[in-house]
Amino acid sequence: MSLETASTEFLNVDNVRFAFRCLGPTSGKPLLLLQHFTGTMDSWDPAMVNALAQTRPVIVFDNLGVGASTGRTPDTVEQMAADAEAFIRGLGLARVDLLGFSLGGMLAQVLAAQQPDLIARIIIAGAAPRGGEEHLLAVVEDAFAQDAPDVRLPLFFTPSGASQLAGRAFVARAAARTRDRDPDGGGDVSEPQAKAIIGWCAQKRDGDATLRSIGQPALIVHGSDDTMFPSINAYNMFKAMRNAELILYPDSGHGALFQYPERFVAHCHTFLDN
Amino acid sequence: MSLETASTEFLNVDNVRFAFRCLGPTSGKPLLLLQHFTGTMDSWDPAMVNALAQTRPVIVFDNLGVGASTGRTPDTVEQMAADAEAFIRGLGLARVDLLGFSLGGMLAQVLAAQQPDLIARIIIAGAAPRGGEEHLLAVVEDAFAQDAPDVRLPLFFTPSGASQLAGRAFVARAAARTRDRDPDGGGDVSEPQAKAIIGWCAQKRDGDATLRSIGQPALIVHGSDDTMFPSINAYNMFKAMRNAELILYPDSGHGALFQYPERFVAHCHTFLDN
Repeated sequence: MSLETASTEFLNVDNVRFAFRCLGPTSGKPLLLLQHFTGTMDSWDPAMVNALAQTRPVIVFDNLGVGASTGRTPDTVEQMAADAEAFIRGLGLARVDLLGFSLGGMLAQVLAAQQPDLIARIIIAGAAPRGGEEHLLAVVEDAFAQDAPDVRLPLFFTPSGASQLAGRAFVARAAARTRDRDPDGGGDVSEPQAKAIIGWCAQKRDGDATLRSIGQPALIVHGSDDTMFPSINAYNMFKAMRNAELILYPDSGHGALFQYPERFVAHCHTFLDN
Repeated sequence: MSLETASTEFLNVDNVRFAFRCLGPTSGKPLLLLQHFTGTMDSWDPAMVNALAQTRPVIVFDNLGVGASTGRTPDTVEQMAADAEAFIRGLGLARVDLLGFSLGGMLAQVLAAQQPDLIARIIIAGAAPRGGEEHLLAVVEDAFAQDAPDVRLPLFFTPSGASQLAGRAFVARAAARTRDRDPDGGGDVSEPQAKAIIGWCAQKRDGDATLRSIGQPALIVHGSDDTMFPSINAYNMFKAMRNAELILYPDSGHGALFQYPERFVAHCHTFLDN
């Protein structure tokens, strides 16, 4: 079973329906993936997800209002984290690891800080801390203005030949699923999510309090030239946390984890298994 | 064969005698280790060296004037790098990877920049760039004043219980070899080496030129709370290099690689094999 072929399942919690897919072994502590701005289950890199699922259960899902899930997309990171928690508890899971990319990495920080019993370890890729530096709207506007074959090429990868080549390979991998793909969202998703990200980064006062309260092991992964959330965010997060490891990749942008999927998965396994 | 049991071999180059030991497979690209301030072959962590040597040839050696090698310890990083190059070429090696710790990481930068054909990949642990921030003399003086069972406990590890526990385990591992140990050096080694380190970090003007000229893949590994060379050095090196990966470990000092030998070796293999 792979990300491209796994059936979409559904879970009802409090009058809303969460869409999700399960991959990998049926026993063991699951790794739950938290998705980026406007992304659905089908926005993940199958190379990354399938390799992670070779040795551990991996769960991808759509948060409220996104993709094949019902409900309304909230406009705060905190409410999105509460919705993700409701999904985890609704599945009957007592303890999970989290991999959050971008907006998902912000949810991972809130969940780890608030739920030390539920959340064992977190991987934060391409994210910013509360009060961090973000250039979301400018970077998205600039990316759409480039009229690229896929907006993720300028959004997630650097202009270098190597990064763009890796980007095109990623875009092709992410398009492999043809049956039962998640519907893409419109302004009902992007507007509240953008408000949530911008609001999170606008909380400049005592922004490190959340990070300082996280005692679980954390792995922070970031690209050298992330234009949306500059890499100094990742360094500052590392310095504010007491049990974090930091990994920065060369010649890479916001989508560093999709540029180097083998390396990223090896780093995730080393982190989660030790 | 292990670091604790391997016979010391000797190589004569230009009227000086280099002491070295070879571990691991006899074929494949060797990984040459470049040692820290006042360290000998027996200052390496056997857990780290032996695990690295499970899948690749590993060579440890004493540079001129150090341990069981003859000659006079030079007082510049550049001359030490030239001596290391003479040793590599004297062995008849056409291409090697380097792992340099602390002072050794400075040699690795010079060698990679000057010898792109000879040096394939470099791992720089606990080092500083040319013009970097160093607190060598203050940190060494403070460490000796603590009257610890082994001066490397305050020098290489943080005051936390977990770090000190890992430090005592490292000190015990490094003491395992009893027969044919390298002699420790005195002021003939420490004085020129200290001068070399301080001189390297005093070169503030255009210090990044060496880093910018390195095109080979580089892995930079550093402790979160290195008091000798603060971790911002590692971040700045990463930002100045075009093909570097940065990994920072939690709750760790100058000897981060010896605090987490399994994790460090896994990261080295991931880096060297991809």
